[in-house]
Amino acid sequence: MAKSKTAKESLAVMTNLVLPNESNQLNNMFGGELLARMDRISAISAKMHSGSLQVVTASVNHVSFNQPIPLGSTVKLESKVSRAFKTSMEVYVDVYIYDYDAENFIKTNDAIYTFVALDENNKPVQVPELVAETEVEIERYNAALRRKQLSLVLANRMNPSEAHELKALFMD
Amino acid sequence: MAKSKTAKESLAVMTNLVLPNESNQLNNMFGGELLARMDRISAISAKMHSGSLQVVTASVNHVSFNQPIPLGSTVKLESKVSRAFKTSMEVYVDVYIYDYDAENFIKTNDAIYTFVALDENNKPVQVPELVAETEVEIERYNAALRRKQLSLVLANRMNPSEAHELKALFMD
Amino acid sequence: MAKSKTAKESLAVMTNLVLPNESNQLNNMFGGELLARMDRISAISAKMHSGSLQVVTASVNHVSFNQPIPLGSTVKLESKVSRAFKTSMEVYVDVYIYDYDAENFIKTNDAIYTFVALDENNKPVQVPELVAETEVEIERYNAALRRKQLSLVLANRMNPSEAHELKALFMD
Amino acid sequence: MAKSKTAKESLAVMTNLVLPNESNQLNNMFGGELLARMDRISAISAKMHSGSLQVVTASVNHVSFNQPIPLGSTVKLESKVSRAFKTSMEVYVDVYIYDYDAENFIKTNDAIYTFVALDENNKPVQVPELVAETEVEIERYNAALRRKQLSLVLANRMNPSEAHELKALFMD
Amino acid sequence: MAKSKTAKESLAVMTNLVLPNESNQLNNMFGGELLARMDRISAISAKMHSGSLQVVTASVNHVSFNQPIPLGSTVKLESKVSRAFKTSMEVYVDVYIYDYDAENFIKTNDAIYTFVALDENNKPVQVPELVAETEVEIERYNAALRRKQLSLVLANRMNPSEAHELKALFMD
Amino acid sequence: MAKSKTAKESLAVMTNLVLPNESNQLNNMFGGELLARMDRISAISAKMHSGSLQVVTASVNHVSFNQPIPLGSTVKLESKVSRAFKTSMEVYVDVYIYDYDAENFIKTNDAIYTFVALDENNKPVQVPELVAETEVEIERYNAALRRKQLSLVLANRMNPSEAHELKALFMD
Repeated sequence: MAKSKTAKESLAVMTNLVLPNESNQLNNMFGGELLARMDRISAISAKMHSGSLQVVTASVNHVSFNQPIPLGSTVKLESKVSRAFKTSMEVYVDVYIYDYDAENFIKTNDAIYTFVALDENNKPVQVPELVAETEVEIERYNAALRRKQLSLVLANRMNPSEAHELKALFMD
Repeated sequence: MAKSKTAKESLAVMTNLVLPNESNQLNNMFGGELLARMDRISAISAKMHSGSLQVVTASVNHVSFNQPIPLGSTVKLESKVSRAFKTSMEVYVDVYIYDYDAENFIKTNDAIYTFVALDENNKPVQVPELVAETEVEIERYNAALRRKQLSLVLANRMNPSEAHELKALFMD
Repeated sequence: MAKSKTAKESLAVMTNLVLPNESNQLNNMFGGELLARMDRISAISAKMHSGSLQVVTASVNHVSFNQPIPLGSTVKLESKVSRAFKTSMEVYVDVYIYDYDAENFIKTNDAIYTFVALDENNKPVQVPELVAETEVEIERYNAALRRKQLSLVLANRMNPSEAHELKALFMD
Repeated sequence: MAKSKTAKESLAVMTNLVLPNESNQLNNMFGGELLARMDRISAISAKMHSGSLQVVTASVNHVSFNQPIPLGSTVKLESKVSRAFKTSMEVYVDVYIYDYDAENFIKTNDAIYTFVALDENNKPVQVPELVAETEVEIERYNAALRRKQLSLVLANRMNPSEAHELKALFMD
Repeated sequence: MAKSKTAKESLAVMTNLVLPNESNQLNNMFGGELLARMDRISAISAKMHSGSLQVVTASVNHVSFNQPIPLGSTVKLESKVSRAFKTSMEVYVDVYIYDYDAENFIKTNDAIYTFVALDENNKPVQVPELVAETEVEIERYNAALRRKQLSLVLANRMNPSEAHELKALFMD
Repeated sequence: MAKSKTAKESLAVMTNLVLPNESNQLNNMFGGELLARMDRISAISAKMHSGSLQVVTASVNHVSFNQPIPLGSTVKLESKVSRAFKTSMEVYVDVYIYDYDAENFIKTNDAIYTFVALDENNKPVQVPELVAETEVEIERYNAALRRKQLSLVLANRMNPSEAHELKALFMD
């Protein structure tokens, strides 16, 4: 196993149309179907980073759906590992829809999933460190620690007063 | 439109098996497929509470997947509106799998979705107030305000220092 | 294995929307898709009653479709074992759609499936007796014997003249 | 509209494999999935006979599943209208699986669906008479009347004592 | 294994409707969905001819889509082995849609797939010879050799100048 | 509408897993499912190049399946318009699977689809010219004319002796 890998090495892209069975009566994509697609593509990034035969979703962060995605849209999902911990990886997914007038992709959404890599016996295995290179990758890498603390706090596995980086957010 | 409705009136239940196409190579349900099913059933609760022809997913809270759900499992999702705001509703989903040895359902997971109710012109419409009755319903009703603040903070639509209920969590 | 179980212990509920791929050109649910969903939920009731790893559909009774179920409807299926025989179980499924004006579920349909419980070697195994408690459960329990006779007659495995309970139906 | 059509003119055939999502944990096809496929192919026969833009399933007769259909099987469904009434048609479906040793199809099952033909305003329309030609077609044509009576009796729309052909079955 | 089989013995027919998820925004069937259905039915013909537990698609010839197939159409696919080589089989698929005015099937398309038969160890196995009987079967049988040469040329596994039958096509 | 666009502007990428319902009994992806996915992604490239609301598949070139794609594989499809004609576009799709040992994508396959762009009245519309930039893009651009001739010859819409570029292939 490599000691470390760049974020870019885990880039996975899934472009696809929105089909009728994935749409509600307003002819907009179900939020849940987008969550399922984002889980699928971010799992692929986690597999590529860990080189593991299998990864399992540990959590998905708070996700907002600010903008409806109409039936028939061309939706592009781009995912990259944003930070690796011991046996887990945080993956960032950006969602775009193609604007046929402007002739480019417009960002509509993003989400953050966490995966654990498993070995053949379904035991967590160590994953390579993540090397953030671009400005955005570095920013996401740094924010990942606060998110991990929030996750532990919400799961009652960390005392809120010990989540220093997170706490700082509310102290300003 | 009724002025208020009880949580129980919005109860929706979806029991189903886990199929091969919803499972990964370890023969466990994809996290994303569970997210999609939870979105579907909680949307039904939101429709029943609002009496609206259509609701759209506004957000899903942080969700943890602590326990794999094997292929072939009998999975039961129960959702109820936990609090109504002006045009939005928070819905709580509890996930259970049937334990064929113990002969009962075991809770494995929960999730919190927020929906907005829309009228025929796709404009948000007011929804009835939510009346919490049981101990659990009341607890979830009270916690909903803190969650709304966290959501606004994370979306940069509220200053963290103004999220009083949320802030209190970190001050003890 | 328990010697007997109540009907209520086998209650399974499946609420879901009607999707475009399940609908015909009049935008009503295919009869066959409803049959498939009813088979799925009643199999779950049979598994819960028998505690068996697997059950197989032995038959479905005559089913009438009196009322179309429109695309986008909220459909609720409720199934319970209505009577247990030696290795087989009769399961009753009631179908409701949610009426968004009246704000409650309206019954549209019902169906009766029979399942056989199997052990690890795919051999039929004995199932617990069924204890009917409510008025409706008792009525369905009693009618189950006539249905079993009709089934045997139609399969040429019982002489019509020996189906006493069934025959009585035509003698009045 | 033709005044009458032969049974053969409505013959529809659907051969397909059994896929993992259609199979239970014993790797046999769900009974409900077979019911859904049979509904689909018999609806096609009813459309071909009636020349109607749309037909709706009115009922399905008692169906027995005597024999499991394994995952990966080649399943052939053949359907033909067996008798036409005023606005409804009875359709007979025969189910076969291909036996790769014997190099031919083996019959495993059959089912009888009833459809109503609709016009553009969703009103029942008259359908052509059915001309039975082969021995099997004639036998099924004659039995169709008894089945219609049983159906009416079970729906409480005919007094059992008036169902002469059906009653005769129990009188011998 | 039989030394030879007629084309007719491998006839497979798949009639089905076109569903919303298989259709584009113009409400016509996706070309790719038709390709997938044609692959499925022609694989069944190849399995029936070879008597093999499994066949794999080796190639599909150039396919033209001259005519859109609307959502809701009744589509019939008929496939037959057109020629057997040592371990491979060419299968011809004809596509028809039902014309509800003319009351018969109209041909819209055809395609030619090649399959290889495999044994339990995933090794190619010899298949029976194909006996063409009708005029169309004989014509397709003869053309199959030219197509095999074109396939080899396009795969750079045959020198164009050695593809005598194919070359003749361009020499007239 | 732009007068011309580069090949790169139409790049579309679809990465996804191979699911059980897309696999045969050898646990390899059905050829037809790969054809369907390739059609979907290349249609997206054609839509992006033409800026058209809708494109329809006109044809798919000969496709060979040299290498099985196992269940659970990570499959990446990359498509780009290779040449634009008056109202049609040729799109090249490259297929890769991720090699978890080598930690990179391995090419397994390619295919060439042709699409026609349509306006709101379903009439073919003119598309921008394609500007090939890289060596591979230029090579594919040049070969596209020969393929168009072969397509016309096979459709009996061009006399083989007039397909000069194609004919040259066999004359050396």
